[in-house]
Amino acid sequence: MPFLELNHAKGQCRIQIGRGLVDQPQAWQRQLDSATLVVTDHTVAGFYLERLQQSLAAWSPATISLPPGEETKTLANWQAVLEKLAAIGAQRDATVLALGGGVIGDLAGFAAASYMRGIRVVQVPTTLLAQVDASIGGKTGVNLPAGKNLVGAFHQPHAVMIDVTTLTTLSERDYIAGLAEVVKYGAIRDAGFFDWLSSHAAGLLDREPQLLEEMVQRAVAHKIEVVESDELEAGQRALLNFGHTFAHAIETATDYQHYRHGEAVAIGMHLAARFSARLGLLDAAQAERLTQLLVAFGLPVSRPAQVTPETMVRHMRLDKKNRAGRIRLILLSSIGQASITDTIDEFTLLEFLNE
Amino acid sequence: MPFLELNHAKGQCRIQIGRGLVDQPQAWQRQLDSATLVVTDHTVAGFYLERLQQSLAAWSPATISLPPGEETKTLANWQAVLEKLAAIGAQRDATVLALGGGVIGDLAGFAAASYMRGIRVVQVPTTLLAQVDASIGGKTGVNLPAGKNLVGAFHQPHAVMIDVTTLTTLSERDYIAGLAEVVKYGAIRDAGFFDWLSSHAAGLLDREPQLLEEMVQRAVAHKIEVVESDELEAGQRALLNFGHTFAHAIETATDYQHYRHGEAVAIGMHLAARFSARLGLLDAAQAERLTQLLVAFGLPVSRPAQVTPETMVRHMRLDKKNRAGRIRLILLSSIGQASITDTIDEFTLLEFLNE
Repeated sequence: MPFLELNHAKGQCRIQIGRGLVDQPQAWQRQLDSATLVVTDHTVAGFYLERLQQSLAAWSPATISLPPGEETKTLANWQAVLEKLAAIGAQRDATVLALGGGVIGDLAGFAAASYMRGIRVVQVPTTLLAQVDASIGGKTGVNLPAGKNLVGAFHQPHAVMIDVTTLTTLSERDYIAGLAEVVKYGAIRDAGFFDWLSSHAAGLLDREPQLLEEMVQRAVAHKIEVVESDELEAGQRALLNFGHTFAHAIETATDYQHYRHGEAVAIGMHLAARFSARLGLLDAAQAERLTQLLVAFGLPVSRPAQVTPETMVRHMRLDKKNRAGRIRLILLSSIGQASITDTIDEFTLLEFLNE
Repeated sequence: MPFLELNHAKGQCRIQIGRGLVDQPQAWQRQLDSATLVVTDHTVAGFYLERLQQSLAAWSPATISLPPGEETKTLANWQAVLEKLAAIGAQRDATVLALGGGVIGDLAGFAAASYMRGIRVVQVPTTLLAQVDASIGGKTGVNLPAGKNLVGAFHQPHAVMIDVTTLTTLSERDYIAGLAEVVKYGAIRDAGFFDWLSSHAAGLLDREPQLLEEMVQRAVAHKIEVVESDELEAGQRALLNFGHTFAHAIETATDYQHYRHGEAVAIGMHLAARFSARLGLLDAAQAERLTQLLVAFGLPVSRPAQVTPETMVRHMRLDKKNRAGRIRLILLSSIGQASITDTIDEFTLLEFLNE
């Protein structure tokens, strides 16, 4: 089994992608020097905690299990992880394992980033979104009442262990939402991958293990390239925000209640592509291909009626990625080619959303 | 006024040392692009907040003032700073100013490190300890009930503004405690500076401004050299822990109630030097010179009777800087020459403490 490697300022992160890793003790022993605390949520724990514990039996790690869901991503739960680490006497050579989706990965990653100013974290993502995006690249954090991910750290994992068979226990809705971020890699930087996704849509929806493995490998390779080229998110990494400025506006306007993140991103990518076409940057037929793939995967593409164009623009204006009060957007020039702009005219944007 | 510069992995930190900086708007305008929030404590605020606000009038920063003292260094107060930043709508280009001693610097620095995964902090240290040590090098953090500095981040300040005249409002006890860390630089890496301190002890105790400025400049230059050579504390930086393993044991055994950190460090340095002599590494006369300078500054050197040798060793064994359960100590081979060892025999150490 080959590893993917992510090189960063402080060293290297090894990423292993395979089927059945959770049940392979040797795989863990190759990647870890220690296993001190497994952080997970109740749902994932029910499926995988005992099995992972058996594979980690050499180290007998402690565990902390939190309720599933975004509401868990609080400073209070982060503090609970820190106090658990202190209670078990974790030292600087300790290793935290984050077994779960993006919420657990972000929370446990930030706890590892902060405990004694940084101990090792091994990400063990079990959702598609976490496998192809959140677990790679070192972004960690929790929410404040005032906003999502307002507190956090950049903290590269020591290793990422991706068992694609864990995707088979994911809910249909969560799995499909994750596909939106996969489509994104094709849309912004790999026309060939976009074509591959289009021609394997049915098998991917059936979660055929070989296809899952290839899809995750190709998506992760893209995430690695982007992160390596731009660890601190100045240029390349910003392209990963394709669809996200629209998506955050929709999520904020609907109080994060109606859409999974990936669903909002699907709508956002559809809007960003059509807006690119509206500005004459992108051929309309290319925008349509993106829309068709999203629809084929069962993803939403329409702006919800209750979020008016005025509300969208107002929220987009507050996006934290903006600079000097100007809306920053990622636009497409073709499937596989994206660029960043902050010269968006708000009136044109509003007009477009009203069409 | 020349700047000192600290080069680190992510850029450069400019350090300005002078007299009266607090009241010089141009000095701040040269160093800052923005000033968003001043974090301080009630005592320091009484002396300097209004004056600093006048110098920062171009930006009208918000302020948050916390109670003075180590008890302030909690996650709850750190969260209050984060929520203040969110409440005033701070974005990624915001700048936090930490006006105060080590507690404020560590707390505000960690808040800046964590808000939106890292915004700028400008350290404005007003105690001697913070000026020559805590404000330089990027260590930030707060305490957990289970232990001091258990949570934090490495986050280099954008700039450090050191106004040595703020030392004139420092209590006698705090000022003298700070001198211990200054002596440390001489002891571990600069015999010439040690001699200078010895020959200017009286003027330094009188806090003569020119002497303060020279002392702080020379001490900061050492801190910069050590941090630059070893940003993440593997080798050189560990030498700064000279006296600290003994000191932490004393502080822990006395519940941090009886000694200022610098006072415990003075006792720790005295013990570490005498232990170095006991092991045959250091000439006894050199150890005696260190003790005499500490005493000349009015610093304590005797192990408190209530902390038994057995208690000392037990706490030293739990020091978080240890590796693989072995006590790590910084020892001297001469005034100006230190090295690290983890081959200490606990029995010899116990015997030495019993002498």
